Amino acid sequence: MTLFDTLDILGTIAFAISGALSAMNRKFDLFGIFIIAFVTAIGGGTLRDILIGATPVSWMQNTVNMYLIGGVTMLSIIFRNKLDYLKKSLFLFDTIGLGIFTIIGVETGIQTDLAPIVSIALGAMTGCFGGVIRDILCNEVPVIFRKEIYATASIAGGICFMILHTLNTPINIIYIITTLLIISIRLIVVKYQVTLPMFSVKN
Amino acid sequence: MTLFDTLDILGTIAFAISGALSAMNRKFDLFGIFIIAFVTAIGGGTLRDILIGATPVSWMQNTVNMYLIGGVTMLSIIFRNKLDYLKKSLFLFDTIGLGIFTIIGVETGIQTDLAPIVSIALGAMTGCFGGVIRDILCNEVPVIFRKEIYATASIAGGICFMILHTLNTPINIIYIITTLLIISIRLIVVKYQVTLPMFSVKN
Amino acid sequence: MTLFDTLDILGTIAFAISGALSAMNRKFDLFGIFIIAFVTAIGGGTLRDILIGATPVSWMQNTVNMYLIGGVTMLSIIFRNKLDYLKKSLFLFDTIGLGIFTIIGVETGIQTDLAPIVSIALGAMTGCFGGVIRDILCNEVPVIFRKEIYATASIAGGICFMILHTLNTPINIIYIITTLLIISIRLIVVKYQVTLPMFSVKN
Repeated sequence: MTLFDTLDILGTIAFAISGALSAMNRKFDLFGIFIIAFVTAIGGGTLRDILIGATPVSWMQNTVNMYLIGGVTMLSIIFRNKLDYLKKSLFLFDTIGLGIFTIIGVETGIQTDLAPIVSIALGAMTGCFGGVIRDILCNEVPVIFRKEIYATASIAGGICFMILHTLNTPINIIYIITTLLIISIRLIVVKYQVTLPMFSVKN
Repeated sequence: MTLFDTLDILGTIAFAISGALSAMNRKFDLFGIFIIAFVTAIGGGTLRDILIGATPVSWMQNTVNMYLIGGVTMLSIIFRNKLDYLKKSLFLFDTIGLGIFTIIGVETGIQTDLAPIVSIALGAMTGCFGGVIRDILCNEVPVIFRKEIYATASIAGGICFMILHTLNTPINIIYIITTLLIISIRLIVVKYQVTLPMFSVKN
Repeated sequence: MTLFDTLDILGTIAFAISGALSAMNRKFDLFGIFIIAFVTAIGGGTLRDILIGATPVSWMQNTVNMYLIGGVTMLSIIFRNKLDYLKKSLFLFDTIGLGIFTIIGVETGIQTDLAPIVSIALGAMTGCFGGVIRDILCNEVPVIFRKEIYATASIAGGICFMILHTLNTPINIIYIITTLLIISIRLIVVKYQVTLPMFSVKN
């Protein structure tokens, strides 16, 4: 099993937990929790595969992920109060998923011979879409439009990935540095309440 | 014409009616009614085709469905008060569509050589997505997150389909049993107000 | 560069501006403005490509559009108050994008050998989807469900396109007539407040 596969599994676990926590916060029933966990975990990869035409999409060809999501969701339900005790757990798992899925998307773009700027966009979509669809279904403001610099962290990571890739950095080093960069940016931004400028029109 | 084709037409009619009724309930204009009816009727099949890569998607290759949806929507508008008189008509047509489109999705998964668990998921998506997109566009809580055990009925039907399929049951018998099972589960659940357990986190 | 390519660029510019204005109206941050502009400009074409199976979708193969959207969005931010001074600018740019993207969708349908009615539907989806996804992300009522006859204008244009096509009208003439027709219909409809009949059910 390569580092790439390991990261894919970690990202899936992280997003499944974040989906399950989000659904439990909204008091969804047993089944709703599984659906939200599933959609959050596979959403980004599904959008990525559809956009590049890699069909049947990956979760259809690799059933391990489905069992993984099912198991993780069940554990999340059982240990829900322990997870909650870790206060920021939803935020943390969501951020880990964002970091990992972003680099998977960028790597997929490179392997599909897409231009660098397109690979970065594909990485951002892969990283962000699971959380966006989770929030739309849970009827919350999509995470990319909150003030937490979500997509920005993802794109900064994608740019870092492309630069290291151009410098012929070993791929596993790229994976680790980029993922940690994305997670760090988001943690720092939220801790120090950094915000991007807004530009509204005069009325 | 096979039983499969007949069911496809019946499912399309059922979802087109449910979409038209939903749009009229929200006082959409003439055109909005047609759009919602169309999207509800083709939504599930379109998602199914995109996920497995069967493009151009099926409604693009079979114009009969488009004329059918147009005709059914017109009849729904003309007879709207008669349909309303049947009180639960929106619920009924939606449930029929769910039952039929679920088995079409499962069957498609089997024909595409997908794993059983993936075929069941594809069936649930095919069955549920039309109703979900209808509810999102009509700005209502998506049907799968109401307390009526919508996706659960669909997945129970998918599991039944796979078991009967493994037992070499004749395909037409599988279609009929599975469709009736899904419809029955949903009717019974709503009649007796069965609900799934909820797991919310302590605050 | 053909008239088709020129129109594609004009449509992309128009929708990018409409997306940027919409995001600034909602006081999104710098990054949110870019995302909404991007999604509005590529949404229709992406849906079109996914439905017909033309993957990787077009914006992934033509990076010019990405730089174009970035540049236009930056200019929209800088000149935001000038654009606002033109009052109806959001409405205008959205209408221009609708007109142009509709004919691109219809033309794509014809080139993919789809039936006329399907090509018209594909044109309407290509034209409308960017605005719909912009409105959903900005949490506004999707433009096709407001009383401004949005999709209707698009479909009327698609029908006109097919008639002229059958009459062997030179393609560039078709492009111009059809685009102007769609824009005119929408402008006239809003100016004279034409509305379609509604059919609600008695309670």
